[in-house]
Amino acid sequence: MSAQPRWDPDFTPYVINAMGPKTPERARVILGSLIKHIHDFAREVELTPAEWMMGVEFINSIGQISTPIRNECHRICDVIGLESLVDEIANKIVTEQGLSPTSNVILGPFWSPNAPFRELGDSIIQNPLPNGQVTWMHGRITDMETGKPIAGAVLDIWQASANALYDFQDPEQSENNLRGKFRTNENGEYFWYCYHPTAYSLPTDGPAGVLLNLMDRSPMRPAHIHLMITHPEYATIINQLYPSTDPYLGIDSVFAVKNDLIVEFKPKTDDPKATLDLEYNVTMALKKHHPNPNSAPPVSSFERFNKGQKL
Amino acid sequence: MSAQPRWDPDFTPYVINAMGPKTPERARVILGSLIKHIHDFAREVELTPAEWMMGVEFINSIGQISTPIRNECHRICDVIGLESLVDEIANKIVTEQGLSPTSNVILGPFWSPNAPFRELGDSIIQNPLPNGQVTWMHGRITDMETGKPIAGAVLDIWQASANALYDFQDPEQSENNLRGKFRTNENGEYFWYCYHPTAYSLPTDGPAGVLLNLMDRSPMRPAHIHLMITHPEYATIINQLYPSTDPYLGIDSVFAVKNDLIVEFKPKTDDPKATLDLEYNVTMALKKHHPNPNSAPPVSSFERFNKGQKL
Repeated sequence: MSAQPRWDPDFTPYVINAMGPKTPERARVILGSLIKHIHDFAREVELTPAEWMMGVEFINSIGQISTPIRNECHRICDVIGLESLVDEIANKIVTEQGLSPTSNVILGPFWSPNAPFRELGDSIIQNPLPNGQVTWMHGRITDMETGKPIAGAVLDIWQASANALYDFQDPEQSENNLRGKFRTNENGEYFWYCYHPTAYSLPTDGPAGVLLNLMDRSPMRPAHIHLMITHPEYATIINQLYPSTDPYLGIDSVFAVKNDLIVEFKPKTDDPKATLDLEYNVTMALKKHHPNPNSAPPVSSFERFNKGQKL
Repeated sequence: MSAQPRWDPDFTPYVINAMGPKTPERARVILGSLIKHIHDFAREVELTPAEWMMGVEFINSIGQISTPIRNECHRICDVIGLESLVDEIANKIVTEQGLSPTSNVILGPFWSPNAPFRELGDSIIQNPLPNGQVTWMHGRITDMETGKPIAGAVLDIWQASANALYDFQDPEQSENNLRGKFRTNENGEYFWYCYHPTAYSLPTDGPAGVLLNLMDRSPMRPAHIHLMITHPEYATIINQLYPSTDPYLGIDSVFAVKNDLIVEFKPKTDDPKATLDLEYNVTMALKKHHPNPNSAPPVSSFERFNKGQKL
């Protein structure tokens, strides 16, 4: 940088200070910072008019491909790591003693508010596929500090089917296939049948595909099982579990792999209904340890719908 | 800032460095800077998941209201000063002697590539309105350094009608009403009939209206006449002229007022066809003085269309 600024140093403050007195304080903070960073970005790279207009058309294209059940901007944010970062800012828990509960990662765009409660031991597989590897998944939820079991925690599980599609995306799947909510028993235990997860590509027919291609990155996500674990007294955990053998662990297109979420599927021979066994235990932190105990999880556009809708 | 970062300091570099070797170098620079600034913004304001999701839905809504002739992202960029900034970065000319030509400002979303050439002395008013104030506009284009007239410069003028609507926006206007291209004569002179411009509001029925309302800002633009002035040997000037009496000069919703673009309309009594007179002279700089002589002006989405289309 030269001592003499090449461009009007008063311009960015002028734009920010144009906000009127009725701007809510939090909006003033957020928009002021956002405008400053966008301006700094433009100056830093000396963004040309043609490049800017490419960006304009790119942003317009995000909304144009979005539908009530396709949230392309959510996906773009995932691809640039923003959802992961926002999740870390909101939910990272480290106590003064250095204790942390099971990791949180991003919700992703496929959670549904409509998953039904099921009984412990039930299967979430409503529409079996021949290549689905049925897994007996089980584990225990305990308090991060006391190690005591947490009864009555709700585990909400969702996963893509063995064809790598979620129920929303696949007219062959019935609503809530591979979705379900389960409540831990008095010993903090849960158990159910699900599938070994299947790796899949982000949809590449829209702006996220354009961006990934430009960045010479893979659109693949490692195979994963989504979980949302809630309890009235404990900080909610939203995370994803990844098989340790997955080839995409190091290049997840949405930056959502953490070491404590990599799990081992083992062969199961004592159950005619399952060929694999997954033990997965969770530790939760009391709400008082959460940096933003009142912060809501991200509510995706699906929240607007009373029931699942097919594309 | 505490010495110990609260969040993983390796995350942003990890996301940026995920770009593969086939990423074009300029894309790597632009996207790397953009990702860094978006992450820095999120950390600076500790963006919550709910706030982030509001932003996601806002960005989706930009594309959803856009059409081939409504470019809402262009408008949003104008509202946050980004088009003005990109214009300054691309086009600011100051010679070592401190000379600058007539100011450039933003193109805006209403330029059309289809304006017809007209003869000097013609009117651009194809569809007169009773409250339109016809203006005899004239002036001279000269070289910034030599003061010599520039013959053969092309002035492309466009303006909203007296009802504050452009031809694109108004089914009552014929294509290219209040648009035209004129070539300066051997003395560098131009002259034509146009309207005194009319102030108007940005459309507030979309995301730009939501944003302006949140920022407690006026959606008004001061009245203006758009010009694009080109010549093979000189740096293109795109600008806008504002009547000195306009009440919105200090609160332009798109930050495009510069002092040398504020002009005086005077009464005209010697011409039955016009009631106002506007003299406006322009100085141009040779292309060698332009910081990016090969940079193209922003090409709006209208460029995609071979002829004007009505909404």
